[in-house]
Amino acid sequence: MCDNGKQTNDQLNDNFDFKIAAQDGTARAGEFTTPHGVLQTPLFAPVGTQATVKSITPAQLDDLGATLVLANTYHLFLRPGDELVAKMGGLHEFMQWQRPMLTDSGGFQVFSLAEMRKVDEDGVTFKSHIDGSMKRLTPESSIKIQENLGADIIMAFDECSDPNDRGYVEQAMGRTHRWAQRCLDAKKRDDQALFGIVQGGIFDDLREQSARTISAMGFPGHAIGGLSVGETKAEMYHTVEVCNSVLPPEKPRYLMGVGTPEDLIEGVLRGIDIFDCVLPTRLARHNSAMTMFGRLNLMNRTFTEDLRPIDETCSCYTCRTFTRAYLRHLVVAREMLAATLLSIHNLHTLLQLARDLRQAIIEGRLEAFADEAIARLNLPRTPKRQL
Amino acid sequence: MCDNGKQTNDQLNDNFDFKIAAQDGTARAGEFTTPHGVLQTPLFAPVGTQATVKSITPAQLDDLGATLVLANTYHLFLRPGDELVAKMGGLHEFMQWQRPMLTDSGGFQVFSLAEMRKVDEDGVTFKSHIDGSMKRLTPESSIKIQENLGADIIMAFDECSDPNDRGYVEQAMGRTHRWAQRCLDAKKRDDQALFGIVQGGIFDDLREQSARTISAMGFPGHAIGGLSVGETKAEMYHTVEVCNSVLPPEKPRYLMGVGTPEDLIEGVLRGIDIFDCVLPTRLARHNSAMTMFGRLNLMNRTFTEDLRPIDETCSCYTCRTFTRAYLRHLVVAREMLAATLLSIHNLHTLLQLARDLRQAIIEGRLEAFADEAIARLNLPRTPKRQL
Repeated sequence: MCDNGKQTNDQLNDNFDFKIAAQDGTARAGEFTTPHGVLQTPLFAPVGTQATVKSITPAQLDDLGATLVLANTYHLFLRPGDELVAKMGGLHEFMQWQRPMLTDSGGFQVFSLAEMRKVDEDGVTFKSHIDGSMKRLTPESSIKIQENLGADIIMAFDECSDPNDRGYVEQAMGRTHRWAQRCLDAKKRDDQALFGIVQGGIFDDLREQSARTISAMGFPGHAIGGLSVGETKAEMYHTVEVCNSVLPPEKPRYLMGVGTPEDLIEGVLRGIDIFDCVLPTRLARHNSAMTMFGRLNLMNRTFTEDLRPIDETCSCYTCRTFTRAYLRHLVVAREMLAATLLSIHNLHTLLQLARDLRQAIIEGRLEAFADEAIARLNLPRTPKRQL
Repeated sequence: MCDNGKQTNDQLNDNFDFKIAAQDGTARAGEFTTPHGVLQTPLFAPVGTQATVKSITPAQLDDLGATLVLANTYHLFLRPGDELVAKMGGLHEFMQWQRPMLTDSGGFQVFSLAEMRKVDEDGVTFKSHIDGSMKRLTPESSIKIQENLGADIIMAFDECSDPNDRGYVEQAMGRTHRWAQRCLDAKKRDDQALFGIVQGGIFDDLREQSARTISAMGFPGHAIGGLSVGETKAEMYHTVEVCNSVLPPEKPRYLMGVGTPEDLIEGVLRGIDIFDCVLPTRLARHNSAMTMFGRLNLMNRTFTEDLRPIDETCSCYTCRTFTRAYLRHLVVAREMLAATLLSIHNLHTLLQLARDLRQAIIEGRLEAFADEAIARLNLPRTPKRQL
């Protein structure tokens, strides 16, 4: 059982394959084969926390050209329960998303959402944010839950710490490494790729050490965790560089929980293949439209009689169909359709950006694309440091 | 101006035409031509109160085969304002519904939603339920607002009273008749059909009198108002019979605010062509699925592991795609997608029922269809009285 787990994780098995189709500097355009189809990278994965991308149907998600969808192990473990999902045929069947899926390990949510938590070497005990009941996650149970859920890509159970507290970061990193091996040992299913997670806060030496340790374990893909949690953009981009200087380029790289347009651009430039973030749907529920020229708050009175779409260059259903004036009316009248239409637009913005980044890599013009896009966002470029 | 209004209302003008394609007893299958297309009757009109059918995109509404959509004059007058809607190109353009639309007159909402109201012979002064400001509607201003909104079918401004209080009903009916004439006189646009509204509570003689008075005014279509407000089903069906025994059969008949499956069936049997109701979308937001075998509350624990669709005979997107177990999860997790998916299903149920009723009329088997459908709903048939 354990041997089988180790074997299948030492390399990509028949169910998985990662090919780099084009490179431009450190950036890559990849093709990641999974049991539910081939993912073209770089890609942005919409988040379906509770087995639904909030306010969007799977049909709308498919129209948007979404490929990989993420769901949260922590939430589904608590409700409706991973065993129920397994009984219902697994996550793909349950929520009717037939393309690839990814589940996180629950680690991040235990440390950000649970009301109380107690970490020990074996795992974490915490209080459910739903009903206050005591729950426990360990590397073994996280893998078991993710096997019940049945996503194509599953994640090692890690410990997220305050990225600036070196003492805590060192302890948490050590545990994350020991837990990573336990996850590899616990894994049984061949049709799931288990990714290892690099931790180490904002400390270059710890990140290098973590990337080296995790890389040596033979995961078929790697993630960078513990970022986008309060550090500066410069720190985040630098940490990505440090990790990617160690992580093997022949395996996919996933920057967890990151999802502004500028983060996608700067991340892709530094060799990231996969991103996910709740931002597009969360901003939508707060009346905000993401565009490649900044954010618009549709509540703003200036849109009252504005007959333009959110973004005249955007080809999404919302922009093809509705005016800012109508969207503002929906927002002011607190109509649910506002969240749906803004989610469609915001997801399109990031999905299209990922497609554009891929094309720019293939055509060898990524730097120029990035300069132009970041300038249009009215932001400064963050130059790569020479490592 | 007034002459022009009267002329166009004396008969259906070039923009409108009502043909009866088939009859089965008192029931009819009609074709109602409007500037935005031909309506096949009997039909059920989804309600888009604030220029949106709650939680549904126009594309989803179109997929459902919806034809006529209703919007509320009272709500749109208060927010965003009919003049803004006119500036934005009218209601069809504003909300992007390119098929026929209907606006009510605001009368019903003034009497059901406004916090305070004062009726005089000229009109009604009331307090906005949104910001508490004082507003006024008169027959003339209701028509002006509805001309700004630009629906294909518009309604005369009426007064809704407690249907059981004969003294009040008589007063309100009298005013409704005088206001109806003022609406006809005020109307300017040729591309809108103004329907008159019959009032009279639950009193047969008053309903007959109202139907006779309204019929004589030359409206191109007639509505029965003041029902589904607390009277019994038997009283409602009987009142429909009384009104329709007077209303001219060659013009379309609209039963306002009515929309359970059994009401559609009993209404069609009695010669109604058009129905509207918020019920399907409102029930959806309260976790309830409408089916032709009764209602299901998806919050119910019995659906936890139920792999069946809501209705195995239903062809809507929700039933083609999702299990009751998944819908229950969405409902329990308070996910917005629940309202969207249940709205799609509930609207489909009534839209499909109206299509099935039409087919039964055309094939001359309406009584048998009604018997079977009402039995499946586990309800008693309400026999027609001989008038």
